[in-house]
Amino acid sequence: MSITLQQAAELLLGNDQITLLCHRSPDGDTIGSACGLYHGLTQLGKQCRVRCCDDFPQDIAELIACPTRTEGFQESYVVAVDVADIKLLGALEEEYTGRVDLAIDHHPSHKDYAKAAYVEGDAAATAQVIHKLLGLMGVRLTTQIASCIYLGLATDTGCFRYTNTTAATMRAAADMLAVGVDSGRMNTVLFETKKPGRVALECRALEGLEYFYDGRCAVMTVTQKLLDSYKVEESELEGISALPRQISGVWVGATIREQDGHCRVSIRTSPEADAAAICGAFGGGGHLRAAGCSISGDPHEVRELLVREIGRHLTQPEV
Amino acid sequence: MSITLQQAAELLLGNDQITLLCHRSPDGDTIGSACGLYHGLTQLGKQCRVRCCDDFPQDIAELIACPTRTEGFQESYVVAVDVADIKLLGALEEEYTGRVDLAIDHHPSHKDYAKAAYVEGDAAATAQVIHKLLGLMGVRLTTQIASCIYLGLATDTGCFRYTNTTAATMRAAADMLAVGVDSGRMNTVLFETKKPGRVALECRALEGLEYFYDGRCAVMTVTQKLLDSYKVEESELEGISALPRQISGVWVGATIREQDGHCRVSIRTSPEADAAAICGAFGGGGHLRAAGCSISGDPHEVRELLVREIGRHLTQPEV
Repeated sequence: MSITLQQAAELLLGNDQITLLCHRSPDGDTIGSACGLYHGLTQLGKQCRVRCCDDFPQDIAELIACPTRTEGFQESYVVAVDVADIKLLGALEEEYTGRVDLAIDHHPSHKDYAKAAYVEGDAAATAQVIHKLLGLMGVRLTTQIASCIYLGLATDTGCFRYTNTTAATMRAAADMLAVGVDSGRMNTVLFETKKPGRVALECRALEGLEYFYDGRCAVMTVTQKLLDSYKVEESELEGISALPRQISGVWVGATIREQDGHCRVSIRTSPEADAAAICGAFGGGGHLRAAGCSISGDPHEVRELLVREIGRHLTQPEV
Repeated sequence: MSITLQQAAELLLGNDQITLLCHRSPDGDTIGSACGLYHGLTQLGKQCRVRCCDDFPQDIAELIACPTRTEGFQESYVVAVDVADIKLLGALEEEYTGRVDLAIDHHPSHKDYAKAAYVEGDAAATAQVIHKLLGLMGVRLTTQIASCIYLGLATDTGCFRYTNTTAATMRAAADMLAVGVDSGRMNTVLFETKKPGRVALECRALEGLEYFYDGRCAVMTVTQKLLDSYKVEESELEGISALPRQISGVWVGATIREQDGHCRVSIRTSPEADAAAICGAFGGGGHLRAAGCSISGDPHEVRELLVREIGRHLTQPEV
């Protein structure tokens, strides 16, 4: 059931012993949203915990104050943040199916799995929603909370670069900087730190870039062999998906990452194409300009399927 | 003579037939500041023109409304924007030496060359100062003006990523987005569009990256031969200087670009080192984390001189 943000605030204020759920392969927005909400609810005297089926990436966890284990916690209310689909709870899906009381999200593709949901599709990040929610609940913005919110905002906007960034996003970010968030450190870790192996891998992957449809589509493939040869972890690949679309003339940039028996595909598009529609054809989803999906097969097979699908979403290039 | 922003506003309001000067090799901040001020002063009924010794880069000029030629213009007041040193007027230096009435700038290294100067060293961009100045002068913020200001803000903050970005910068950016600036188009052009040749060159340059001082310093060299072989123009190199510093463990990232008989050097640093001090040793300057200079010699000689100087500015790495 769809509710207002004010109703979401009232639900949270009326409950205690709250579990906050993050999506699998947690990113800065789900982590920042959950931890920001955790610190806010804790400030109001409530007991909470944050759960995720995967560990938080070490470098992100170090940027904020992650919740510590709560003694004597007895779950009585469950909130999912930035979780567009119950499936995205990963290994926690079974445990929480039918048991999520409240979902707070910003994905327009949000599936209705919670008893109550507040989804703000034009918010750049769930953290932007959490900021407003904390305000409605009367939480005082501390540097600790602001760091969590900033983490979410910066992550989902590519540091305020993507088109989802609005005046409201910028004002939220200004509020965070005003209370002393160390944005320099955050941005360096999130956007400006690559291990030498990652840099080398990026070069190799870019050199293997393939163009289709008169250069309107560019596909980059990251094989397991490539990852192994540069000793690069999956978690260090953040941001690599943005590269193919950055080449001038490219409307659809696709990144194929080989995994066991299937490939994870990331799509980035210019305003001329719909990333969510392309990924939707393979059971995935996301936003208009950035989306993802999984496709069975080896990178070669996946590329063939993908390029064919992309062709259906490209209008004829102007002459 | 140092003056207040209010005094700068009064000087502009009390004058007409105003020439606005940009620095050589014009970037988004000097262009956005000059054009934003131009449109603001024009709105107040004044005649103005914008001058620069170099043409504006085509892709940047297309993002904003560049001033057209003014009929019957008779220069009676001269304002330099984002020009830290009279030398940076390039071919216009001689014509304007001793004739600049007002300088508006944000470079802490600003040299006192104008009759009156307002320098706000902690503003992220001169455009941020221009925004305040236009407000003081009672200029209505149009989308046209806001696009110019946004261009300056985004350029000098690396799209709100650098440590010079403050709450005030974010609020200024929010004001610009609120009046409908097409930030998506701007950011794509400024930060997310690279020609295929530029991408290939970047890979080649990164593969040739050299490390010094236990990886605390990384030096990238872009030779003329490399530029020629990928048919890449000097103007397409924007942002390349940021790459060496982005590698984890690197405190000082240097980029050497070969030019006729000398090299242009860009330095980017982490908080552990002072970029302006390193470049200052070669007669250059800039900011704490980003600075530049010119050094005579071929890339090999320049690298040797530079690496020796960098060594003097590196404290001992912690064990």
